[in-house]
Amino acid sequence: MPSLLIPASLREDIALAALKNDRFLRALAGETVDMTPVWMMRQAGRYLPEYRATRAQAGDFMSLCKSPELACEVTLQPLRRYAMDAAILFSDILTIPDAMGQGLYFTEGEGPRFRKVVRSEKDVEALPDLNVAKDLSYVTDAVSVIRRELNGSVPLIGFSGSPWTLATYMIEGSGSKDFRNAKSFMFNQPQAMHLLLDKLATAVTDYLNAQIAAGAQAVQIFDTWGGVLSTHAYREFSLAYMTKVVAGLTRESEGRKVPVILFTKNGGLWLEDIAASGCDCVGLDWTIDIGRARARIGDKVSLQGNMDPSILYASPDSIRAEVARILQDYGSGSGHVFNLGHGITPDVDPANVAVFIESVHELSRRYHQ
Amino acid sequence: MPSLLIPASLREDIALAALKNDRFLRALAGETVDMTPVWMMRQAGRYLPEYRATRAQAGDFMSLCKSPELACEVTLQPLRRYAMDAAILFSDILTIPDAMGQGLYFTEGEGPRFRKVVRSEKDVEALPDLNVAKDLSYVTDAVSVIRRELNGSVPLIGFSGSPWTLATYMIEGSGSKDFRNAKSFMFNQPQAMHLLLDKLATAVTDYLNAQIAAGAQAVQIFDTWGGVLSTHAYREFSLAYMTKVVAGLTRESEGRKVPVILFTKNGGLWLEDIAASGCDCVGLDWTIDIGRARARIGDKVSLQGNMDPSILYASPDSIRAEVARILQDYGSGSGHVFNLGHGITPDVDPANVAVFIESVHELSRRYHQ
Repeated sequence: MPSLLIPASLREDIALAALKNDRFLRALAGETVDMTPVWMMRQAGRYLPEYRATRAQAGDFMSLCKSPELACEVTLQPLRRYAMDAAILFSDILTIPDAMGQGLYFTEGEGPRFRKVVRSEKDVEALPDLNVAKDLSYVTDAVSVIRRELNGSVPLIGFSGSPWTLATYMIEGSGSKDFRNAKSFMFNQPQAMHLLLDKLATAVTDYLNAQIAAGAQAVQIFDTWGGVLSTHAYREFSLAYMTKVVAGLTRESEGRKVPVILFTKNGGLWLEDIAASGCDCVGLDWTIDIGRARARIGDKVSLQGNMDPSILYASPDSIRAEVARILQDYGSGSGHVFNLGHGITPDVDPANVAVFIESVHELSRRYHQ
Repeated sequence: MPSLLIPASLREDIALAALKNDRFLRALAGETVDMTPVWMMRQAGRYLPEYRATRAQAGDFMSLCKSPELACEVTLQPLRRYAMDAAILFSDILTIPDAMGQGLYFTEGEGPRFRKVVRSEKDVEALPDLNVAKDLSYVTDAVSVIRRELNGSVPLIGFSGSPWTLATYMIEGSGSKDFRNAKSFMFNQPQAMHLLLDKLATAVTDYLNAQIAAGAQAVQIFDTWGGVLSTHAYREFSLAYMTKVVAGLTRESEGRKVPVILFTKNGGLWLEDIAASGCDCVGLDWTIDIGRARARIGDKVSLQGNMDPSILYASPDSIRAEVARILQDYGSGSGHVFNLGHGITPDVDPANVAVFIESVHELSRRYHQ
C-alpha cells in the first residue's frame, strides 16, 4: 500500500536504513540487550506542555488524530525530551468504530462518546466492512510520516483497541462503570455479539496490517476492558478474537519480525492463556508481581510493564526505588520491556518522567552483563 | 456492651434460640450442608421497590443508616421475598470516618463524599480515637433490633470497610478513578499512611467486635479498593492491616464460632496471601474461576462468590446456566457460600433475583449428596 506522502524510492531508503536503537525489538525477541528498553503507554500526552500546545493548535482531539503532520509532531515530542526506546503512533483506540460511521467525539473530562450505539443484531449487520486503506488513510499516512521523521532512531509501534474493547464502547456509546449494556448484549444476544466481534476482528487485522505495511515495526493490541469479564467470558469474547487477529497479522516486514504485544488490563489471572495466543509479548498492569509473571510464563513470550503510573506523582527517590524493585523482581536476562502498567496520567511532572526513564536505563545494566 | 433497646433477659433468649437455618455458618466452617447457601452483597438495595419506599421515608441515605428501625426494615426486605441463607446489616462502609468527624454525605448519582479530607500527618494525628459504643451506637442498636426481628431464621452478618479502603475515601474525599491523592500520600508519606491505617485498623477491630457483641454472627471486611495496588503495596498497605484486624476480633460468641470473610475486589492474584491472613473465608469477585481458586487454596478456608452481577440483567435461562457453571466449577462438597462477585446493581429486575436464589438451591443439591 503506497503512501501518498512519501515517494516509493524514499520509502525504500527508510526501510533499508538500519535502526540505530533496536533494544526494544531485541528484548521482545528475547535477544541480549545492554540495558532494559523502556517506553510509556500514552507517552505522547497531556503531561507535556508541548502536547497541550499542539492539541490547542489542532482544535479538538480527533482533528489532532486526523492530521498526519500533527500526529507525527506529538508522537515525536516525548522522544525529544527522553531517551525512550520506542515511539508509538499517536492515535485513538476508537478510530475503527469511528470509520464505521458510529460518530466518535470527545467531551472535556468525560472521555470518548459515540453518536450512534449498537444494540441489536440489525445494528451489527448494518455496520459497513471497512476499506482501511481508504477509510483510515489518515492513520497509515501518519505512520509513514512518523517513520520518515524518526529516521531510524527508534522503532515505531502501531496499535489498535481489541475487538472486545471496541465492542464495549460501540454498545455503551461511552465509557462505563459496569458495562451493563455490553454485558446484557453478550448474555442475551451472544450470536449478535459474536458477529460484532468477528467483524471487528477482521477490521482490527486489516488495520494493523495496514499500519505494518506503512512502516509500523511492532504492534500492540489494547484490551482495556477484557479484565471486567469472568474467566469464561474473557476467553470466549475477548481472547478468542485477539487470537484470531494475531493469526491474521503480517509477522515480518522490512526483513525483520514484527512482534505483537497483547495488553489486557486486569488480565493477571490469565497470563498463561494470553501467552498461548500466538503473541510475542504480554503487557502487564501493575497489580501483578513481574517476577511471578515470569515464573508462570517462563521464556515462552516476553513481558512488558509494569510500574503503577501513580508512582510518577511521588518523589524521585521513590520512583528510582520502584524501578529498582521491578528490575530486581524480573531478574537477569532479556525479555523485558519496561513500561508503566497503564497510560501516564495528565498531571504528572515531566521532570519525574526523566527520572523514570533514566533510572530504567541506569539501574538495568547490571541485569544484562 | 448491653443494648439500650433490648432488655438483657430478652437478649439472652435470642442468643440461646437455635438458628433455624445455619447453612451459611456450616458452609463457612466446611461442615456438610444439604445445599449451597446463598446471599447477595447489597441485597438490601435499590433494585427493590420497597427499599426505595423506605429510603424515601427516611429522607437521605445516612438517615436510613442511622435509624435502627429503618435499617432493620430494609435488612429484612430481601428475606421476605427470597430464601436467602443470611441477612447482612444495612449500613455503609464509611461510618467509621464519618464518626471520626470527616462529614460523610451523599450526592445523587455521585457516590459518597467527605466534607473534610486527610492530606498530611497533622490531619492523621488530629483524628480522634473512637468510642464505638458511643459514637456508632446507631449501628450496634441496628444489629440488636435486626437480631430480634430475625428471630433465629438466618444468621446476621456484620461488616466494615477495610482500613485501606476507608483511607482512600478519607484522603480523596470521594471515590476516585486513579486514587491519585491516596497513592501520592502512600508513596510520599508512607509513615503518615501507616499511622492512618493503624488508627483505622484499631477502629475497625473495635467496630466489628461491637457488632459481634450486639449479635452479628459472622463479619465481612470489604476491601473494595485493595485491588488498585501493586502486589507489594497491597501486602504492605491493605492486607497487613486486615490481618491485624482479624487477629483482634472476637472469634466466638453465643457458643459458636464467628467466621470472618475477607473480600478484596480484584484480589484474585493474591488468594494465597489473603487465605493466610487468619480469615475463615475469601470472598471472590467474578474475574477468577472458582474451581481454580479452590485448587489454589484447597480446604484452608472457604470461598464466597462469584457470579458477575451483570448476569442478573440477562434472561432466566442465562442466569440458571451461569449458576450451574459456577457450581460445577466449584465441585462437590462444602466450603462454598454462593454470592455475587460484587454488589447487585440498582436496575436489576427483582424477578431475576428469585431465579438466581432458587437456582443456587435447586442446582446445588447434587453436589452435597
